[in-house]
Amino acid sequence: MPAAALHPRASRPRSWWGWGYADARLDDAECAALGALLPGTLARPLPIPRVADLTIGRPAVTPPPSLAHLVTAEPRPRAAHAMGKAYRDVIRALRGRPGRIPDLVAHPAGDQDVADLLDWAGEHDVAVIPFGGGSSVVGGVEYRGGTHRAVLSLDLTAMDRVLEIDTASRSARIQAGALGPALEGQLRPHGLTLRHFPQSFEFSTLGGWLATRAGGHYATVHTHIDDFAQSLRVVTPAAAGTSWRLPASGAGPSPDRLFLGSEGALGVITEAWMRLQERPRHRASASVAFADLHRALDAVRAVAQSDLAPANCRLLDAGEARLSGASHDGSAVLVLGFESATAPVDDRLAVAVDLARAHGGRGGASPADGDAPADAAVGAWRSAFLRMPYLRDGLARMGAVVETFETAATWDTLPALIDAVRTEVGAAAEQTTGHPATINCRLTHVYPDGAAPYFTVAVAGRPGDEVAIWDEIKAAATDVLHRHRATITHHHAVGRDHRSGYDRQRPEPFALALHAVKNALDPQGILNPGVLLD
Amino acid sequence: MPAAALHPRASRPRSWWGWGYADARLDDAECAALGALLPGTLARPLPIPRVADLTIGRPAVTPPPSLAHLVTAEPRPRAAHAMGKAYRDVIRALRGRPGRIPDLVAHPAGDQDVADLLDWAGEHDVAVIPFGGGSSVVGGVEYRGGTHRAVLSLDLTAMDRVLEIDTASRSARIQAGALGPALEGQLRPHGLTLRHFPQSFEFSTLGGWLATRAGGHYATVHTHIDDFAQSLRVVTPAAAGTSWRLPASGAGPSPDRLFLGSEGALGVITEAWMRLQERPRHRASASVAFADLHRALDAVRAVAQSDLAPANCRLLDAGEARLSGASHDGSAVLVLGFESATAPVDDRLAVAVDLARAHGGRGGASPADGDAPADAAVGAWRSAFLRMPYLRDGLARMGAVVETFETAATWDTLPALIDAVRTEVGAAAEQTTGHPATINCRLTHVYPDGAAPYFTVAVAGRPGDEVAIWDEIKAAATDVLHRHRATITHHHAVGRDHRSGYDRQRPEPFALALHAVKNALDPQGILNPGVLLD
Repeated sequence: MPAAALHPRASRPRSWWGWGYADARLDDAECAALGALLPGTLARPLPIPRVADLTIGRPAVTPPPSLAHLVTAEPRPRAAHAMGKAYRDVIRALRGRPGRIPDLVAHPAGDQDVADLLDWAGEHDVAVIPFGGGSSVVGGVEYRGGTHRAVLSLDLTAMDRVLEIDTASRSARIQAGALGPALEGQLRPHGLTLRHFPQSFEFSTLGGWLATRAGGHYATVHTHIDDFAQSLRVVTPAAAGTSWRLPASGAGPSPDRLFLGSEGALGVITEAWMRLQERPRHRASASVAFADLHRALDAVRAVAQSDLAPANCRLLDAGEARLSGASHDGSAVLVLGFESATAPVDDRLAVAVDLARAHGGRGGASPADGDAPADAAVGAWRSAFLRMPYLRDGLARMGAVVETFETAATWDTLPALIDAVRTEVGAAAEQTTGHPATINCRLTHVYPDGAAPYFTVAVAGRPGDEVAIWDEIKAAATDVLHRHRATITHHHAVGRDHRSGYDRQRPEPFALALHAVKNALDPQGILNPGVLLD
Repeated sequence: MPAAALHPRASRPRSWWGWGYADARLDDAECAALGALLPGTLARPLPIPRVADLTIGRPAVTPPPSLAHLVTAEPRPRAAHAMGKAYRDVIRALRGRPGRIPDLVAHPAGDQDVADLLDWAGEHDVAVIPFGGGSSVVGGVEYRGGTHRAVLSLDLTAMDRVLEIDTASRSARIQAGALGPALEGQLRPHGLTLRHFPQSFEFSTLGGWLATRAGGHYATVHTHIDDFAQSLRVVTPAAAGTSWRLPASGAGPSPDRLFLGSEGALGVITEAWMRLQERPRHRASASVAFADLHRALDAVRAVAQSDLAPANCRLLDAGEARLSGASHDGSAVLVLGFESATAPVDDRLAVAVDLARAHGGRGGASPADGDAPADAAVGAWRSAFLRMPYLRDGLARMGAVVETFETAATWDTLPALIDAVRTEVGAAAEQTTGHPATINCRLTHVYPDGAAPYFTVAVAGRPGDEVAIWDEIKAAATDVLHRHRATITHHHAVGRDHRSGYDRQRPEPFALALHAVKNALDPQGILNPGVLLD
């Protein structure tokens, strides 16, 4: 599956209710086998939901003839645009209670279409939900509550072309609706790559990455898509504009940084000049095992505070390592990977492995420099990584409640934070369900001053109460993060599910500023209402 | 001089009208010798201006007793806070026509003082000019025009302490008024360094660096102070707040990035948690000479697009190289420097030198790894770098007009941009003065997608017309940058002198946003009026 998933056919159908490709979902037997690992789950999987079973009304508004060719009111695309792909979304679909189905889905072909649709929506009190690949796991692409007359899902994926390439500056102008594979496919003939590979790579767009500050391929230095944005074009209800293509600037506050992370609430990013990379010619990777997670954290900190800049520096706790096949003896595993288009990287790997061993790591023999990951753990990890969301949907079908969340914190608080999440979120999950919960943790991105842990919580639910249970687990997680001053999100975005944590975290001067910007750029309040602010 | 300048005594008097330390200025004979190099300058230097010769009126407002201890109305500090240290400022002082002398100078001791002063100023229509080291070269710290009842210069330098150090996360909480040497002096006992060394290091503050997005020590990767800011505390007239200490976050648009580059127009940065470095243990440097500047640009691009990440990658054109003693044969010189606290850097230097040689470079023998720069050109460059502003003041005393400006542009436009600046700005300088002009160029910071050139223009002026001539040269430079879509500033900030270029460069949605933020955070419009926006 993973290999095929990286080379999607345009015609390969996507699931309207679950993650990714419809044909990649677990079959009933696989679901049952998975459920058997989690005490208290259902005896047999919930059935696959059908669009035909949904109640989908007539749209409350009709677009004018000039926009009619861009807009559809067909049931299936409307159902597929009702929500993102969070566990909360999947279980609601499985339980036949999806989020508000949008009245219309629009597929603009260019900037002017976007501006025209925003104008029309503003005049008719229609909420507009910008929609890329729809892979949001934070309630970022649904309409939840509110008083708008109608809801339009603004699907950007018809705008998927690489428009211009500047090889001297290794940059390309790319439309925001390009999905990962389409984008890379257009860059490949030029020997260039954006090299941004989030877990959602196949099912998310450049515009979505930019609007949510997506975390990408690199575990160190340039960890977010932010750093690769050279210039943005933004269409807002009040004005449209493009920042200059600049390698860097000190001219006032960065205009791009205001729209990076704006999650469709301030404007629609329609295209961007992106900084590209040469494809790496040299690679080396290794994994190092640790008996003790806290010593492993010290090892990762030593690597992060060096200037070795590994492309991959993932620390898997014992549960994650077992799940991905990287280790079966209860060890935590640090997966290190280096790559370069300039020079061999074996020396850097060797220094990193030495640092890890100095903190109690075992293994990590320096493999040969070459194209393929030399260590079996690395390959096992990659396959499992792409497969995980499908497994989550399988667990959902078995009535489990699954929550994945991530954060970032400075090193001084990180060990206590990880312990507290295990203890407190685990207790919340067990108390609310009466079943034993599993919590795994990995570090996905590391910094000289801290790191980003990613947690997976799984527990059997009570049939029909899954959303309420999920909400309790989420509240417990939000509370732990808040008390440790760990960000409510490192790269999943705020959306609607993280609003309470975000509101507590956002400093007051910036809250005032953001509200002022929202009023100035979206005076009618039609853009993604409820995301980031009310 | 340079060695002493790096270890300032607290009591060493600063010049009120010119750059840096009063005792470091050129004497009359040195000024005359320098003037002799530039045809058409005066026969003898203009006299040193005296505060006693200025007309300094009584303040138009009186602070309340509760704030009186923070505020002075003495002539000398008021004169020293009237302007920054641009050429335009120095020549105005030399000609006895300085900028508007502020009514009062305040030295707050902490956040509450800042908030109280802003409250009082807001109630009494007093413009507040935040003032760090006062080294602005863009008119960033003066009051120019406007209708306020009075002007208060808010000098932050009494807030100069390192308040807290987190060694695990290599971070420190530092008050914004700390000048470079005071800041480094407090970090040194902990084996840590901010390693931010702008040319103004001795005479500028952390808050000034943050508010202007200062360019620092590193020529690649983390080139601006922005990247080292972990959390900011900001006091605005509307609210005060502190962002969380985070190594990274994806929770909405970055709150800190809105205040980085806000130049005192949106709020006062009072303290920051900053990311620190270990002191480097390994260093290596070399210089490579090029007969042709365009081939040298290709070499720099190759290095910038590698992942070698030199700490120093300065390209000096023939004029710059001659001026700094790095070369006397008309060659351009590329100065490469690597440093690391992790591992020896000779290999990286060797690969970089090979890349440079492959593009026609000569020299660059790999020196030994050690503490001291092995190449004479490197040392010569450093001394000249710190001396340059004093030379500029010497030229100003000889009636010359000197303008230094910097920008950044993508590689595809860079060679044409540099040629156009030479030709067009040179022609403007010569036409308006009738004297031959000198234009030198160096690259200070380099990126995979472009670089930041820094230009120095010098030409003999017409006595008394220097400001008008400077304005014409600046207008020509602004025009060339605009036509090449090169930023109006890479690290000097916008201030008041770059407003016309900034206004043309700023995309419309961000202009609307910035005005809205200004109105929300500074509703009375007292903060640094005229900077960034009206």
